[in-house]
Amino acid sequence: MRIAQIAPLSEAVPPKFYGGTERVVSWITEELVRQGHDVTLFASGDSETSAKLAACTPEGLRLLGYRDHTASHLAMLHAVHKRAHEFDVLHFHIDLLQYPMFEDLYHKCVTTMHGRLDVPDFMPVYRTFTGMPLVSISDNQREPMPSNSNWQATIHHGLPSENCPYYPEAKGGYLAFLGRISPEKRPDRAIQMAIQSGVKLKIAAKVDKADQDYWDEVIEPMIHHPLVEFIGEINEEQKKDFLGNALALAFPIDWPEPFGLVMIEAMSAGTPVIAFRNGSVPEVIADGVSGVLCDTMDDAIAAVHKVKTMSRAGVRRHFETQFTAECMVKKYVAVYEQLIENEKTIIKMPRAGAFTPHYGDLNGSARPSLSAAAMPA
Amino acid sequence: MRIAQIAPLSEAVPPKFYGGTERVVSWITEELVRQGHDVTLFASGDSETSAKLAACTPEGLRLLGYRDHTASHLAMLHAVHKRAHEFDVLHFHIDLLQYPMFEDLYHKCVTTMHGRLDVPDFMPVYRTFTGMPLVSISDNQREPMPSNSNWQATIHHGLPSENCPYYPEAKGGYLAFLGRISPEKRPDRAIQMAIQSGVKLKIAAKVDKADQDYWDEVIEPMIHHPLVEFIGEINEEQKKDFLGNALALAFPIDWPEPFGLVMIEAMSAGTPVIAFRNGSVPEVIADGVSGVLCDTMDDAIAAVHKVKTMSRAGVRRHFETQFTAECMVKKYVAVYEQLIENEKTIIKMPRAGAFTPHYGDLNGSARPSLSAAAMPA
Repeated sequence: MRIAQIAPLSEAVPPKFYGGTERVVSWITEELVRQGHDVTLFASGDSETSAKLAACTPEGLRLLGYRDHTASHLAMLHAVHKRAHEFDVLHFHIDLLQYPMFEDLYHKCVTTMHGRLDVPDFMPVYRTFTGMPLVSISDNQREPMPSNSNWQATIHHGLPSENCPYYPEAKGGYLAFLGRISPEKRPDRAIQMAIQSGVKLKIAAKVDKADQDYWDEVIEPMIHHPLVEFIGEINEEQKKDFLGNALALAFPIDWPEPFGLVMIEAMSAGTPVIAFRNGSVPEVIADGVSGVLCDTMDDAIAAVHKVKTMSRAGVRRHFETQFTAECMVKKYVAVYEQLIENEKTIIKMPRAGAFTPHYGDLNGSARPSLSAAAMPA
Repeated sequence: MRIAQIAPLSEAVPPKFYGGTERVVSWITEELVRQGHDVTLFASGDSETSAKLAACTPEGLRLLGYRDHTASHLAMLHAVHKRAHEFDVLHFHIDLLQYPMFEDLYHKCVTTMHGRLDVPDFMPVYRTFTGMPLVSISDNQREPMPSNSNWQATIHHGLPSENCPYYPEAKGGYLAFLGRISPEKRPDRAIQMAIQSGVKLKIAAKVDKADQDYWDEVIEPMIHHPLVEFIGEINEEQKKDFLGNALALAFPIDWPEPFGLVMIEAMSAGTPVIAFRNGSVPEVIADGVSGVLCDTMDDAIAAVHKVKTMSRAGVRRHFETQFTAECMVKKYVAVYEQLIENEKTIIKMPRAGAFTPHYGDLNGSARPSLSAAAMPA
């Protein structure tokens, strides 16, 4: 299959710094290539990939110091549109800008929704361009969306199985908190879980500028307890030990997390997840198998003792059957095949009187397109 | 002529608060209607106009509390594109998003560039979509743009002649500074002008959050001089007296101002402008007639005495002949007519073998379009 992956240009693929979306795009791209597909990655020029790289900007826009990213994405989309006939499928990982430009090509498009969808600012596009084929990263993520959205599938994120290797023993015996220090991630709950259960907590997290007040006023005063250790930011390599040696990952979130990569990173290491039931959590955690679902702090404190008896091999097995990059890409390929299949069905239907010089033209003109919509009736 | 005016959705047209672009769009729209054109204004629902209002959002997005304005603009553009056949001309006042969506309709589009054009972030669109017909608001504004940009004209902004009424006498005898307190507007220079020339200065200005440090550290310590009076923000009504009673407007800017509405507001009141030569300034000020062009602080201090002998009637006359809304709209109508004329020329050329059911279709297919570009060769 000839597949275009269209990535955000803010960071390289994979990202040199932060960028959950760019990491997932990289995993999808590399796995598609491994499975023998002909993949072109539209991304920043400092991306590293075994696919063909279509460099749309010399470096990630954040490195270039660009504050407004719209123009670069519009120029990338123009390049994608010009080359669209080279591909069977165009897979978008950018937020919004592709909706109007590709209205004439929705039959070969799919957009993965990487963020939360309950932001009213974005609704005008979701309500206006309902034809775009969409993939959600959890069922829960779809809830705020218009009922006539063109959902193709929910595809949970997957992780290359070697990224966070399996640790058969929780040598550290601590609770791990990994992510940003922000109110909706509830590091305060993680600290309470440690103190009230008497189990050590290690916090590996960065403090964004936007969250400085929350850190100063709420979290910093809490981290001086002898059971709490704040170790700051860690890199991908340090993450392996940090997660692998933990008794459990504390994931006491207080917001509708669309997916939550860190949960499957922990599960990949064999580390169970103690998570509050919110957003994607009940879809990702098999309660009692790969972690414990909690509704209250009492649940969470009880869970700290419960996970001690949980099989780390069982956690890893749950990861392997559902959350590897291979699992994820199989589902994406099924979506791509379905798009192509739908297309063939339409082709087979005769269109009386239409001059159909070639496949692409038929597809183009058989659908409502931007230009057709603008013609006088 | 059937004309669509496409305004930013951040503020109403005219704006309830700040919004230079929205004010200009309102003046263009009202004057076009007055001249008998059939005008539709695509804008927020709380806009007030004598044209037909196509409400694209209930209120200005800032009032709605939207932080991301992209989706609302994309939805508006979709509505404009669907109705494009109803109009002879589509006149855009939004920044970038229309470039890709209207590639098939550039023959009836024109975009006024309202901002500075030397921001690298935006260049990818200017370099990619060179076909969009453009209007600059000063010749100087064009300088950073690619040489193959499709300029139609420079059209200086114009002001309804009654907005800032003529004051035959400068009763207040002060220098006026009006605008934001920001480093590139150089209120510090205005203060120096007052102190060194011994003439009182009144500062009517708001302090944006972004400029708070500049205010605290640089300007606030300077305003306690007996010749300096800071009067804070003023409204449109207060502006009339503030400008009309001034000896001169101090406009000692230090950046390439694309236009600078306040200069023509002062000129409308008969108040000469003492301005530093930068950006649009030499195009707007007739040196010695409607103000004084300066390169140095010595020039500016000498100018304070020079303006005392300048004819306020002459300043107003310069405004009336070049900077009324009527002048501005005459030039826009000429651009619209030129677009339509070009179009007719293309129509007259026979296109062998083409089935041409109607005007719109011929135009649409005679041009490179998004969908045509995407077809296999």
